[in-house]
Amino acid sequence: MEQLGSQTWKFTTRPVILGSSAVVGPEEGEGPLASDFDFIYDSLEMGEKTWEKAERALFEKASKLALMNAAVEQEQLEFFVGGDLMNQIISSSFAARKLGVPYLGVFGACSTSMESLAIASMIIDSGGGKYALAGTSSHNCTVEKQFRYPTEYGSQKPPTAQYTITGSGCAIVGRNDGTAQGTQVHVVSATIGRIMDLGLTDPFNMGTAMAPAAADTITAHFRDTGLTPGHYDLIVTGDLASVGLPIAKELLAEEGIPMEQTTFDDCGLLIFNLDKQKYVIAGGSGCGCSAVVTYGHILKRMRKGELKRVLVVATGALLSPLSYQQGESIPCVAHAVALEIGGEGQ
Amino acid sequence: MEQLGSQTWKFTTRPVILGSSAVVGPEEGEGPLASDFDFIYDSLEMGEKTWEKAERALFEKASKLALMNAAVEQEQLEFFVGGDLMNQIISSSFAARKLGVPYLGVFGACSTSMESLAIASMIIDSGGGKYALAGTSSHNCTVEKQFRYPTEYGSQKPPTAQYTITGSGCAIVGRNDGTAQGTQVHVVSATIGRIMDLGLTDPFNMGTAMAPAAADTITAHFRDTGLTPGHYDLIVTGDLASVGLPIAKELLAEEGIPMEQTTFDDCGLLIFNLDKQKYVIAGGSGCGCSAVVTYGHILKRMRKGELKRVLVVATGALLSPLSYQQGESIPCVAHAVALEIGGEGQ
Repeated sequence: MEQLGSQTWKFTTRPVILGSSAVVGPEEGEGPLASDFDFIYDSLEMGEKTWEKAERALFEKASKLALMNAAVEQEQLEFFVGGDLMNQIISSSFAARKLGVPYLGVFGACSTSMESLAIASMIIDSGGGKYALAGTSSHNCTVEKQFRYPTEYGSQKPPTAQYTITGSGCAIVGRNDGTAQGTQVHVVSATIGRIMDLGLTDPFNMGTAMAPAAADTITAHFRDTGLTPGHYDLIVTGDLASVGLPIAKELLAEEGIPMEQTTFDDCGLLIFNLDKQKYVIAGGSGCGCSAVVTYGHILKRMRKGELKRVLVVATGALLSPLSYQQGESIPCVAHAVALEIGGEGQ
Repeated sequence: MEQLGSQTWKFTTRPVILGSSAVVGPEEGEGPLASDFDFIYDSLEMGEKTWEKAERALFEKASKLALMNAAVEQEQLEFFVGGDLMNQIISSSFAARKLGVPYLGVFGACSTSMESLAIASMIIDSGGGKYALAGTSSHNCTVEKQFRYPTEYGSQKPPTAQYTITGSGCAIVGRNDGTAQGTQVHVVSATIGRIMDLGLTDPFNMGTAMAPAAADTITAHFRDTGLTPGHYDLIVTGDLASVGLPIAKELLAEEGIPMEQTTFDDCGLLIFNLDKQKYVIAGGSGCGCSAVVTYGHILKRMRKGELKRVLVVATGALLSPLSYQQGESIPCVAHAVALEIGGEGQ
């Protein structure tokens, strides 16, 4: 591994995503990316007695499907790096119990997807292991209940609100043995974000709160790597949705980053059809959103040859209901991971 | 970095703990390790309006003192790896906001101390950075309120209960430049634990729940490294306390690990005088406990030449109040980090 600038890690061996999975709930299954998901539950209950047990079942299914898709046996898996939005990341820890492998719990709210992928890639790149799983999950009903109001309560939401997706995405990262080039997705670099907090306090407007973090990490990525946005076929945030993405665009324009060189989109916008699925309001959010869009949709597009280089910038709002109740503003963070299909080997 | 066996990372460059800090509350200041702590608050309120704000202040003080003790400027610090027991690890995230550096949030309950040290050491060892801070915190009143009952409620506790310590410990990990050998503490290896869950459900008996995780990780460490307990002058768990430590000893004896070759103790027992400080019942616990005992007491003993090699095995009970209320058992994990004074350089 090599440090570029101050915040970016270049994974010199270019670890490979050997396989991945995206498992979602019924609403995501009605969205435009449905055909890219490995499994779609037809009910939010998923046959479990509580929402929390349902989220855990979702995470466990995704982790097993990722192993299957990667053709890696559970006994071969050496590390599990995961987290979620639940208090004490119980969905992840219970999934880790099922997998029975060494476990590193992480928390970055919705940035957990790329935080876990960055750490798993560091483990593989630096010789610390042969196979590592990075994964995360969210469930609409567990998150709404914990952070806002139980869905059953039926409270109204403002037009800036985002809809927590129900889904879990996992990726198996392995060593780059130089074979099968041109069809494999490599993890090339990661830019670790710092906390940005502009003093916003509204938990129904996460997109605005997180936009400065996304812009800061994207700016750092290009400063550290010396690249420009045109290097990537797609730069995707997760999840700024319809309110936050234009703000991030504006902030990046102020920084002089020529984002017009590339396609700049957001996982929270890609996963739903906002015109038809009105209930999602500003778009999707939740730990699982950038994970299922990346590990389902984007990796499939890369393998099909539609995208060669992608920068995924997962954003997290690191509030708790308690910090909000105590009048604190919302600290936000974004972590970026660069993915590339094929290219030179080790 | 080199992988030993399946669960252990050998840090081949032997990163250095350039400086560390241990900040505690008044009860810990009355314990036998008082003189090893950098700062002792004289009240649990710490001049703040809520317990959560107090814990954050504690963490922020510890992170600043660690930088000072390491003679590293805040601007030089590149990564902050931290976590705590609060929902959404807010103490850590708010401390990260204050530090303004790239931030990786982690969660391993009381194993967070060694999880964060292992990840920070991996970053430095693999060339991903020059300076990384690993830290964690706990506050008796925030944890008791969140996991059990508010302290003010005055509920009684069974004799197996442990007392969450008030404290934050941070370490600055830096590159090993080969200078000042013999006086610096090196991070030599880390063994990442897997989840052990023997079906226990009593949140007032964490020591018993966590003992199998400690024993499993210690067994894995010796299997992976080929060493025996006699290699270490001290093996210390954190925190099994008076109930869990004897169980871990028994489990290790069953595994045939000759722990009698070394001193085998527990941070939750070291931090208090159980005979005098009756209110701690079975001993200390909490994210901060193994952190302040390691970064305050143990590193000082190492620098004085009293200990050459130490294995710190931090144990975490990964339950949430909700998982407990839903009848789930307590998944536990333990991460071990080996520290060594002096020895060969890079």
